Amino acid sequence: MSTKNFTPSAIIKKKRDKKQLTKEEIQWFINGLVDGKVSEYQMTALLMAIYLNGMTTKETAALTDCMLYSGTVLDFNDPTVIDKHSTGGVGDKTSFILAPIAAACGVKVPMIAGRGLGHTGGTVDKIESIKGFKTSITLKQFEQRLKKDGIVLIGQTKDIAPADKIIYSLRDVTATVESIPLITASIMSKKLAEGASGIVMDIKTGQGAFMKTKAQARALATSIRETGLRFNKNMMTILTDMNQPLGNAVGNSLEIIESIEVLKNRGPKDITEISIDLAGGMIHLAGLATTHEKGNAMARKALKSGAALKKFEELIKNQGGDPKVCSNYSLLPVAKQTTIVTAPAAGYVSNMNNERIGLLCVDLGGGRKKASDKVDFEVGFIFNKKLGDRVKKGEKLLTIYHHAKQNKMVQEMCGEFTSSVIKFSKTKPKLSPLLIEKKISWSK
Amino acid sequence: MSTKNFTPSAIIKKKRDKKQLTKEEIQWFINGLVDGKVSEYQMTALLMAIYLNGMTTKETAALTDCMLYSGTVLDFNDPTVIDKHSTGGVGDKTSFILAPIAAACGVKVPMIAGRGLGHTGGTVDKIESIKGFKTSITLKQFEQRLKKDGIVLIGQTKDIAPADKIIYSLRDVTATVESIPLITASIMSKKLAEGASGIVMDIKTGQGAFMKTKAQARALATSIRETGLRFNKNMMTILTDMNQPLGNAVGNSLEIIESIEVLKNRGPKDITEISIDLAGGMIHLAGLATTHEKGNAMARKALKSGAALKKFEELIKNQGGDPKVCSNYSLLPVAKQTTIVTAPAAGYVSNMNNERIGLLCVDLGGGRKKASDKVDFEVGFIFNKKLGDRVKKGEKLLTIYHHAKQNKMVQEMCGEFTSSVIKFSKTKPKLSPLLIEKKISWSK
Repeated sequence: MSTKNFTPSAIIKKKRDKKQLTKEEIQWFINGLVDGKVSEYQMTALLMAIYLNGMTTKETAALTDCMLYSGTVLDFNDPTVIDKHSTGGVGDKTSFILAPIAAACGVKVPMIAGRGLGHTGGTVDKIESIKGFKTSITLKQFEQRLKKDGIVLIGQTKDIAPADKIIYSLRDVTATVESIPLITASIMSKKLAEGASGIVMDIKTGQGAFMKTKAQARALATSIRETGLRFNKNMMTILTDMNQPLGNAVGNSLEIIESIEVLKNRGPKDITEISIDLAGGMIHLAGLATTHEKGNAMARKALKSGAALKKFEELIKNQGGDPKVCSNYSLLPVAKQTTIVTAPAAGYVSNMNNERIGLLCVDLGGGRKKASDKVDFEVGFIFNKKLGDRVKKGEKLLTIYHHAKQNKMVQEMCGEFTSSVIKFSKTKPKLSPLLIEKKISWSK
Repeated sequence: MSTKNFTPSAIIKKKRDKKQLTKEEIQWFINGLVDGKVSEYQMTALLMAIYLNGMTTKETAALTDCMLYSGTVLDFNDPTVIDKHSTGGVGDKTSFILAPIAAACGVKVPMIAGRGLGHTGGTVDKIESIKGFKTSITLKQFEQRLKKDGIVLIGQTKDIAPADKIIYSLRDVTATVESIPLITASIMSKKLAEGASGIVMDIKTGQGAFMKTKAQARALATSIRETGLRFNKNMMTILTDMNQPLGNAVGNSLEIIESIEVLKNRGPKDITEISIDLAGGMIHLAGLATTHEKGNAMARKALKSGAALKKFEELIKNQGGDPKVCSNYSLLPVAKQTTIVTAPAAGYVSNMNNERIGLLCVDLGGGRKKASDKVDFEVGFIFNKKLGDRVKKGEKLLTIYHHAKQNKMVQEMCGEFTSSVIKFSKTKPKLSPLLIEKKISWSK
């Protein structure tokens, strides 16, 4: 079909009227956006029509495809190159744990990670709390590093899916973020460009996640698996609970320290177990273990033996950081001043407003309110109590790491923590399991 | 409620989620658009959300209100100032007939008219085929003319509803034109600015209209009446059939000639009768006749007596044109070359693709394909047969007025007319009445 009679408004009209767009129409529109023939105000009208009227798997794949090919696409053609992605949450530092574990087991891990977004922290921001760690290298160097070291971690580059960058910035200011086809295309266009053979997707659900309900998270998982399959990728999706921070630490360098603790086999159980599950999935997808369970066993062994910690030290060294941070945490920037929040009464921790916890960390400076903000690596929270824990009146709930000049703000924060962010009940609350469900789809 | 916490995306999100916007939110958004704080790409996302999720009468009135007050608002405070508006069709030249009729009966007619749009002709384009007729004067002069002459006809000015101008241009290229609340706000913000006490709305329906179905047209009529009432205007809506051209002429100067013929009591019956109905409605709304029927009788008398023709000549003279065009049509620009389209077989005219007829006139140059195009006053069609007419094989269906250089295009056009634009049946088709229904709403 000739594209010469395509017009932006005819394509928008089709989606507006709930019709299915062809691959050619989607491609023409996105290419037009990139080269300026389609206006941003036409893109946002289409985005809202997609938000409200949806897209089929075929349309989502076509959108992903042209966002993907708007930039450089790597292809390692190696079944052991496996990536992992999380839809974002509070306290989620699994990447720093699972990547060295998987790499220690023979998986090649090509991570192109994001910065903080809204209430969620960013992998790149966190790793940059290690002084000297370089997250911006060329894609050529990225390829070489992966082949040589089997593990590499960088930030988004302008070469990868530039169309996504334009579209994402428009979605962010037009209330069109929470759309399953748009999220799928945005995530997958970036992940597919990394050239992995398989991808493990950690889809968060709950109050600290973008997908608030399990039904939404499940729909996104299905959409992502189906899209991955259309690009011949092996796909594993894992739904995990995000109704409380993952692990105990929230904040950039505090999360790096907690990750190292996990790699030293003395970290919190929740983050340890989920990291093993994700790394085990990567090992399985890479064909290095015949089942997910066997992958988990290999992962657990690499963690116990210290091989994973060694890989993490190598990663830091290879990318310009000082691996001594792993043995000497004082090399990491942590705020000197701490304030303790205590329980106002006895009971069980029954609810944590996890999105609010993420936003309070942003308020301290641990995240960005606008893109140009500088991130403060030093601040954050260490939780002593989590959902379901029994507490006595006056017992320590969490420690706030902050600066002296923030004393007043932190006093208010303490009040908010005990009055509304953390809630208590008389009886032990029923909790969701951390790993809610998992699905694997193999490409032919 | 304070507006300081409003953000474009929160307002878009509300409409996206099918919630009702407050007057303050709508106002903040539209003012932001005009002063640049809200981006065009945010406006179009909101427009698509409005298109798909609708607006209540209250929201529509609020949108109309802030678009209206984005510019100058006249107020004559005179019950006899009555305007008429048509939603646009093919061959619709009623303004040139009803305005002088109503003015001859004592109504003051303040017309701010539009240019051609899509397949429909524009009142301003048509009147400008009279050499010297000035359609761009200041609003001050417009006011003075109306008070002095009782009739004035100008084009859109940048002082009237500037927000509509921005929004309309965005709707045009984002497939958000055919939305009842958006059409209502666009029409009414301009019409209310003219300061009339009452408005007669001619809502076209059928294949040559923007509202293709009677249900759509009826919904728009209701929305327009309800919005008018909220601004204390007396409102009459008339639904009229647009499944064939109104009258026999389509094309700028050809339509002016046909209008003058009607004013001389020798024009086609359909356009004559509907013009009387519309003028009668204006006379009634102005309080100069106690019923619509009595208004019609006054209108008919003004037409018969030649008073209306005299008013039209005055209008031409007052606005810089030569009133002699009324007695000497050779003063009007009409293409010298004509081509006759004849019936391919005997039968009844059963269908006329009226939108296509409008677009063929645009193809000849009688309308614009883009805003910067110059309109050719000379070209167009005169139909000898209309819906329901019996034709013999080879009988004249219409005459095409064109230029010699268009011969090839016109040959193809002839083929299209007889093969698809005009369709024939063996039995007499059932026709819609021209005037489908009318409703009047009086303000308190």
